[in-house]
Amino acid sequence: MPGALLFSSRLDDPVAWSAALKAEMPELDVRVSPDLGDPADIETALVWKAPPGELASLPNLKLITNLGAGVDPILADATIPPHIPVARLGDEVMAQMMAQFVTMCVLRHYRDLGRYERQHREARWHYELPRASYDVPVGIMGIGLLGGGAARMLASIGFRVAGWGRSPRTIEGIETYHGPERLAPFLARTEILVCLLPLTRETRHIVNRDALYALPRGAKLVNCGRGGTVDEAALLTALQDGQIAEATLDVFETEPLPETHPFWRMDQVLVLPHIASIAVPEIAARDVVENIRRLHQGLPLLNIVDRARGY
Amino acid sequence: MPGALLFSSRLDDPVAWSAALKAEMPELDVRVSPDLGDPADIETALVWKAPPGELASLPNLKLITNLGAGVDPILADATIPPHIPVARLGDEVMAQMMAQFVTMCVLRHYRDLGRYERQHREARWHYELPRASYDVPVGIMGIGLLGGGAARMLASIGFRVAGWGRSPRTIEGIETYHGPERLAPFLARTEILVCLLPLTRETRHIVNRDALYALPRGAKLVNCGRGGTVDEAALLTALQDGQIAEATLDVFETEPLPETHPFWRMDQVLVLPHIASIAVPEIAARDVVENIRRLHQGLPLLNIVDRARGY
Repeated sequence: MPGALLFSSRLDDPVAWSAALKAEMPELDVRVSPDLGDPADIETALVWKAPPGELASLPNLKLITNLGAGVDPILADATIPPHIPVARLGDEVMAQMMAQFVTMCVLRHYRDLGRYERQHREARWHYELPRASYDVPVGIMGIGLLGGGAARMLASIGFRVAGWGRSPRTIEGIETYHGPERLAPFLARTEILVCLLPLTRETRHIVNRDALYALPRGAKLVNCGRGGTVDEAALLTALQDGQIAEATLDVFETEPLPETHPFWRMDQVLVLPHIASIAVPEIAARDVVENIRRLHQGLPLLNIVDRARGY
Repeated sequence: MPGALLFSSRLDDPVAWSAALKAEMPELDVRVSPDLGDPADIETALVWKAPPGELASLPNLKLITNLGAGVDPILADATIPPHIPVARLGDEVMAQMMAQFVTMCVLRHYRDLGRYERQHREARWHYELPRASYDVPVGIMGIGLLGGGAARMLASIGFRVAGWGRSPRTIEGIETYHGPERLAPFLARTEILVCLLPLTRETRHIVNRDALYALPRGAKLVNCGRGGTVDEAALLTALQDGQIAEATLDVFETEPLPETHPFWRMDQVLVLPHIASIAVPEIAARDVVENIRRLHQGLPLLNIVDRARGY
């Protein structure tokens, strides 16, 4: 009999998650924050930005699962005992939803849809001949489960795609670059840059002024990874002077993006409220429950985060 | 030595087309409307909405090639002698560009991007949990070169796609319907409807009030085919009463869409200036020149339109 699972998220639906978890493991006792009952009953936690201290208050906690791919909120919470393993969610459906979202953002920039949307509001009919997609190189920073899936989808529909990551990787049909010294050449060949990096010590503000100006003038930026990977002040300047022509931003250094932030009032920016991809309960519950079974059988846990690496 | 080719289009670039045609056939004499020279020299024409009477004035015209897939403007011009064969352009690059454009429009409706764009303009951060794409059925009317390509691309990235056409067709991974009596069941299972039909006697206003109300309430419409296939008055009513939640319209009964048309002022409509796909000169010139060669060698011409069928 597994111990209780604590569900703690202000964004995800506890009813859908409880139903999905119980469909996979009917005997699982699911407690929804803040109704913990006896904290000593809780053995596993499924969380997105749990209130600081909540996880530290659970004396028998053996596994924390992050309700998403990016675990930076958990690793940043110093109250969580570092010996408790942290797993992240990341399944094929989540990867597909992210790839579709990135594909939508890239197509929208490639076909200048932002300009046509403005023309619609001005009741203006004006046509420009489009380029073929293979003439508009796309670059993806971060080519793990999510970024690699986005790269493959974009290549499959006709884009010339390159990917950049921390370590060497081979993806069929994708030109890959790795390491700090290959970042500038990767950026120089990229007209639409997609950022899907995890937030770690190494990636904080990796898209800084130098990186933005290593892109060709008039490049476009999509950030669906973590807000902290982009230096927002540098991006604001690059947008104002035309170095970056347009940006689609789904993540920000502070979320929700403060109402006073200039991004809201820029026509060439699309601010989105962190919607690119989610863990779909009916799918992702399988991985959560598989790890609970493994915990009880003493088997190696899946999707465990390397705290030193940060993802 | 082939006779001269007349290029006549107000939308396409004569310089790019002349260069592309001469790259394929250096000896080709390209005349750009209205500078015809001696009309008797002209043997072939490459046209998009040529001025009425222009083609009829060419005594030795042997082949008309339409600068696009939809030949309704040529067939509607009663001054053109009906014995002259009409070819239409439609190559893999044009099909890919259309499939990408349709994919962008479908993804935009699937992920409710129109609503998020409005939220951006209101500086409002509000998040709704998305559905997985396989829960949002897409239906494509017209599943020839362009529609079939769009159907395959959407299926390949995770949508459940059905197609409807005039005659039976089999496309792997796509549920197909055909004929007037199967239109209602096709519409009933479709949440995002894409219209890519040619404009013929049979398809004029095929998306009428009955068809719009055969869709589930709150369905979304994308028209990248021909404006005349949709009854715009019926669509306006269906949008106003919420039967159709949103529409992306790239084609209209009258183009440019008149400034006074209510579509321009509707938040739930995106009016686009007929931009979905074009014939890319460097690619499409190959098919134009291939038919000129076949004409001279007495071989069967390619991509010839069936005037009775209308496409």
